[in-house]
Amino acid sequence: MQTVLVPGIETPLPVGKLLCIGRNYEKHAAEMRSAVPEEPMIFLKPSTAIVRSGGSVVLPTVSRDVHHEVELVVVIGRTGRNIPEREAASHVAGYTVGLDMTARDLQARAKEKGHPWSVAKGFDTFAPLGDVVPAAQVPDPSALTVRLRINGVPRQEGHTSDMIFPVARLVAYCSTIFTLEPGDLLYTGTPEGVGPVREGDVLEASIEDWPVLRVDVRAA
Amino acid sequence: MQTVLVPGIETPLPVGKLLCIGRNYEKHAAEMRSAVPEEPMIFLKPSTAIVRSGGSVVLPTVSRDVHHEVELVVVIGRTGRNIPEREAASHVAGYTVGLDMTARDLQARAKEKGHPWSVAKGFDTFAPLGDVVPAAQVPDPSALTVRLRINGVPRQEGHTSDMIFPVARLVAYCSTIFTLEPGDLLYTGTPEGVGPVREGDVLEASIEDWPVLRVDVRAA
Repeated sequence: MQTVLVPGIETPLPVGKLLCIGRNYEKHAAEMRSAVPEEPMIFLKPSTAIVRSGGSVVLPTVSRDVHHEVELVVVIGRTGRNIPEREAASHVAGYTVGLDMTARDLQARAKEKGHPWSVAKGFDTFAPLGDVVPAAQVPDPSALTVRLRINGVPRQEGHTSDMIFPVARLVAYCSTIFTLEPGDLLYTGTPEGVGPVREGDVLEASIEDWPVLRVDVRAA
Repeated sequence: MQTVLVPGIETPLPVGKLLCIGRNYEKHAAEMRSAVPEEPMIFLKPSTAIVRSGGSVVLPTVSRDVHHEVELVVVIGRTGRNIPEREAASHVAGYTVGLDMTARDLQARAKEKGHPWSVAKGFDTFAPLGDVVPAAQVPDPSALTVRLRINGVPRQEGHTSDMIFPVARLVAYCSTIFTLEPGDLLYTGTPEGVGPVREGDVLEASIEDWPVLRVDVRAA
């Protein structure tokens, strides 16, 4: 069972749901030639997809086009259902940086056929997750710069002020569908600049001066 | 955190992934006017969707067409990755009956747009789960009759010998994508006869003479 440590909370939280948001930045929707959604687009990853800093993303043999998507990740700290937006912050234990790895070819095929996205998004190691920064140290989750470097070269840089649905709205919306529980993770969507990763790449995902999430990429 | 008790295993297993299979019976694919898939079609539900016998399925206000899908559910008991079919049985702790509740209108809209299925399938109470029968008492998971009655009237009856992908194949296939862990649940797909449920309905799902899973349906 995966757990996540939030500094200041003594016991690590058991990881629950990984709720992920698609197309939450206009420029990313545009680069995917996708419409800007009218409400948050949610998909799930399994907790077995988590890999921590220092680990490896493993390229599945059934995909030829695995993409990086760097994101702000919200760690839920308190159970809630139908949470009002103004109370959303009180349900957040912390924040971190994560990667929503995506087998773009499998996702494209799924989209075309109207199939679920779970495989394209859910392989082992497809949810790299950084170390958690306590919520108290993040006064405004809409004032963060999110970055990804590959082999030292900047590849994605976005700002959470550009989210279509900001964190409080995402927490509130998700909680109308699913009971949120301590240890649930909310991957909030990626800014533009997504692209393929290759065997041997070193990915460094970061938000502000938080601990860097560093994973390499290897073949299966 | 949800747990699942397997008779004979002292400690309840923490529920992990809910792996669900779409279109695993030809006649159900036909009634959905869907193609028979060439490989198992996998989607995920969150563990917060589980409701146990005696509980209620709650109809979300955003759907007008929530359907029942009765299914054999496999409870994973041992960790595995790339499990060969011939070893699949050794990773199964038990079996039970479950319901894959589906907001058909939301699913249809998602399919049309190529969006994920997670919301249509993932609301709280959308994964009713029966009591577990130890695997040792189920010599052949492909020799089971699966039934659903609503208000005492038979509505679905299928036989697991009609699965397109039998249990061992599903376990093996899923384990090529996701590490399987003790407490993971595999909803194996529904036979034909799906249809809407209404407020006040009493659903009784059963497999052979196993404990009946009984839930009622109520408005949000």
